[in-house]
Amino acid sequence: MALIFVTGNHHKFKEASEIAIQHGIEIEHRNIPYVEIQADKLEDVIRLGIQQACALLNGPCFAEDSGLFIQAFKGFPGPYSNFVFRTLGNDGILKLMVDETNRRAEFKSAVGYCEPGLKPKVFTGGVEGNITLEARGTLGFGFDPIFVPTGEDGRTFAEMPAGEKNKLSHRARAIEAFFRWFKQRKTVDR
Amino acid sequence: MALIFVTGNHHKFKEASEIAIQHGIEIEHRNIPYVEIQADKLEDVIRLGIQQACALLNGPCFAEDSGLFIQAFKGFPGPYSNFVFRTLGNDGILKLMVDETNRRAEFKSAVGYCEPGLKPKVFTGGVEGNITLEARGTLGFGFDPIFVPTGEDGRTFAEMPAGEKNKLSHRARAIEAFFRWFKQRKTVDR
Repeated sequence: MALIFVTGNHHKFKEASEIAIQHGIEIEHRNIPYVEIQADKLEDVIRLGIQQACALLNGPCFAEDSGLFIQAFKGFPGPYSNFVFRTLGNDGILKLMVDETNRRAEFKSAVGYCEPGLKPKVFTGGVEGNITLEARGTLGFGFDPIFVPTGEDGRTFAEMPAGEKNKLSHRARAIEAFFRWFKQRKTVDR
Repeated sequence: MALIFVTGNHHKFKEASEIAIQHGIEIEHRNIPYVEIQADKLEDVIRLGIQQACALLNGPCFAEDSGLFIQAFKGFPGPYSNFVFRTLGNDGILKLMVDETNRRAEFKSAVGYCEPGLKPKVFTGGVEGNITLEARGTLGFGFDPIFVPTGEDGRTFAEMPAGEKNKLSHRARAIEAFFRWFKQRKTVDR
């Protein structure tokens, strides 16, 4: 039986699918709208979200929430990255960063898993990097064109093919952590 | 019996108190943390919020949510105004608005009222205006120093004494609408 990934974002589903294949896990896409709360931590947002999605589906499922946390702006846009991308976009972030010397940022991801009778489990992943001076690349989605991960060759996430981004990304790390737990658990932590 | 205003913001309580006095209504401050959801409309945020607060209190209460909706940015920061004020502040908004000729914005407010057994009621208020070129004034709170209401003398909300702001403000309008309804209702709309 395929494991259900609850998301309205087909980019996220595609990224997760490629990781799932490597783990021999079959995943299925479902777009079930669940409520996201306003909270500074992604973990808090996803914990409540996956609990609801699980109740609606009445079956095991996982979901993911991610955000770009810019150090000079105390974590903005953080958990509201989706809204900020829709309203300000990459251009807005670059405008805010004009003359800003501290360009450090972290992409964070939280994956929530729940099944009936189980307390939600949350797995996190992060990747540190810098905000570019201009947007570069057309791959990926969201803030990918303005984020360069630390320790790599200076390309943005939007300049990396999916397979490469999946070796580094916050989302890949959180999903990997979840898949490893999912495959290995023998007893359910109720 | 005093009517309970659920808020963590003492500025809001002060503004509401001054309006309440004019209506002969006594209000009381309670800081009960309730969950706010992520939604583009304040009405949706406050409806769920006041329902929870009412369940926690097991008694009648009201709460208020407000935001600054900037036209050139598709409503940013909108329902996330509190977070954006904490992270970017007025300086961040002014930086985003550099070279922006469309400076129109609206302050919006939604008041939610609930009592046990009653479906939440929501009242809204808005005030149109413009984003200034620089912050001015020290009264009020939040984005008040960068907002000039339309049709007035060019002062920002932060340059107006509370009594004056309360004749114009989005929050005052929503609270007035609520108080008028609250005083006049004979039968409860269940």
